[in-house]
Amino acid sequence: MPALGEFDLIRRYFTHSSLSEHVVIGVGDDCAVLKIPAACELAISIDTQVSGVHFHADTDPASIAARTLRCAASDLAAMGAEPLGFTLALTLPSADENWLEKFSQGLLQAAQQLQCPLIGGDTTRGSLCITIQVHGSIPLGKALRRSGAKVGDSVWISGTLGDGAAALALIEKNITVSQDAENYLLQRFYHPDVDFSLGVQLRDMASSCIDVSDGLLADLGHICAASGVGARIALEKLPIAVEWRSSVSEQQAQQWALAGGDDYRLCFTAAPQHTAVLQSLHGVTCIGHIVEGAGILIDAKNGFIHKDDFIHNKGFRHF
Amino acid sequence: MPALGEFDLIRRYFTHSSLSEHVVIGVGDDCAVLKIPAACELAISIDTQVSGVHFHADTDPASIAARTLRCAASDLAAMGAEPLGFTLALTLPSADENWLEKFSQGLLQAAQQLQCPLIGGDTTRGSLCITIQVHGSIPLGKALRRSGAKVGDSVWISGTLGDGAAALALIEKNITVSQDAENYLLQRFYHPDVDFSLGVQLRDMASSCIDVSDGLLADLGHICAASGVGARIALEKLPIAVEWRSSVSEQQAQQWALAGGDDYRLCFTAAPQHTAVLQSLHGVTCIGHIVEGAGILIDAKNGFIHKDDFIHNKGFRHF
Repeated sequence: MPALGEFDLIRRYFTHSSLSEHVVIGVGDDCAVLKIPAACELAISIDTQVSGVHFHADTDPASIAARTLRCAASDLAAMGAEPLGFTLALTLPSADENWLEKFSQGLLQAAQQLQCPLIGGDTTRGSLCITIQVHGSIPLGKALRRSGAKVGDSVWISGTLGDGAAALALIEKNITVSQDAENYLLQRFYHPDVDFSLGVQLRDMASSCIDVSDGLLADLGHICAASGVGARIALEKLPIAVEWRSSVSEQQAQQWALAGGDDYRLCFTAAPQHTAVLQSLHGVTCIGHIVEGAGILIDAKNGFIHKDDFIHNKGFRHF
Repeated sequence: MPALGEFDLIRRYFTHSSLSEHVVIGVGDDCAVLKIPAACELAISIDTQVSGVHFHADTDPASIAARTLRCAASDLAAMGAEPLGFTLALTLPSADENWLEKFSQGLLQAAQQLQCPLIGGDTTRGSLCITIQVHGSIPLGKALRRSGAKVGDSVWISGTLGDGAAALALIEKNITVSQDAENYLLQRFYHPDVDFSLGVQLRDMASSCIDVSDGLLADLGHICAASGVGARIALEKLPIAVEWRSSVSEQQAQQWALAGGDDYRLCFTAAPQHTAVLQSLHGVTCIGHIVEGAGILIDAKNGFIHKDDFIHNKGFRHF
């Protein structure tokens, strides 16, 4: 096979790098150079998606690209940051032009939608593996951490829960749903919403925040552990999308909402004085409150359940 | 195999993350948060090393780690940036504790030597693949680019050339050298020097700069292409280490110095008024000058040679 020049590849498919007031030097030099807005800090998050682990090798390349960028960008939203740009480290088994064309189109479309331009990267040969690092700005001292939850705060979630796990079950052909539900779930899985504006609004209201990637219980558990508190949530308050919830048993839907992962929603806590403003926001739901102690209790109709009853699988996903 | 919690891994082996005046939030939240020094821009570079492509799978993990971080950091030095910290995206086939322990020790030792702390990361399961992104600061507008070389500038190189290719030949058992030469070459290969202080000094002297990773001709070629100029260099001026040069033919040594790659030296151009200061710096050698036109001419004893005569192999390395 002829040697594959990494710079040729990058130039050909990833030259969308648009200089902006923040991007001083983009793709094509030893480093990219970013100018951080005045009185702001830099928030960064790096995220890898591996073929055969995080996605099937035959998944539409545009969808892989969009999902990888959006999942990474979700961490910026969870800190209350606004996007500045991202870098791409792409490891490919070969220079498949058809694949690269679709991948780059999906990537650059998502970049445009998120207002987060490609600013640099590296391309290497190996098993398909995609690493994206996102960069965002946040006013000095305003970053939303996991560690600020206080007893008496309410626990909130943006959007619906369980979509990620339901979509995975659909992709794995473990459930059948209507065409509308399928469209909804695939959209949610490959193009998860990233609500930067909500994160910005939360800077002055939330006491802690995280994005739900490992599942509500695991991620709210991270908030509890970092904050030295416990949480109590109400099973019947979990927001589950009408598009698919009647396609599976109520218990299955609730388990996915609690422990399914891949939802990329914001889970946050806020003091009671912010309740009225938060209730006025579209798609934000109060699901419980912070209590003394540790761990998460789930109030169900027939008594409360400790979270361990619900978590059957955590950590890495396996196809 | 039991599911491998990425956070468990990261916490256990990569908790060295030390907050500093620049690292506001390190490992353990959705994002790391960096405070960029006043009146500075942010320089970033992302770099991937793949097992079986960039290193043998059985290479000492500490050496793989040190090399990956140092190769990435070299791009910061080439921009004139000073290190702020790095992120690590580590893809591993399994949680081999012995491997992880050695890898993390090598990584954190290099981080300490370079004054570039680990500030965040991601760990995933898959074929062994290491991506590092380095972050540095640079006074506003002072970044050293590839594009500023002017006709009449001198071409300079820091340190010696050809060490990377000679080391690779040694690792591949294609050459035999003395024990001293072996020690020298393995040190140069796995622990390449990163001269941040030279990069800082060059901010006010160099008209362009790049680090030599693909080989002198390829990288000086990037400067020429970006600057719209040509270069003329003298074969007998190329600095080649006495430690190994007599172990191979003169022609072989020169070819490695010209086209070998993996040297991680700084190649830069500077106007004649800086010659005296540059000559006073330790280990910096003038190897030629910038001319009108395009491409690189090499002055040899028996006439001059066009660079294409010397480049037999470029792009990806193959073991």
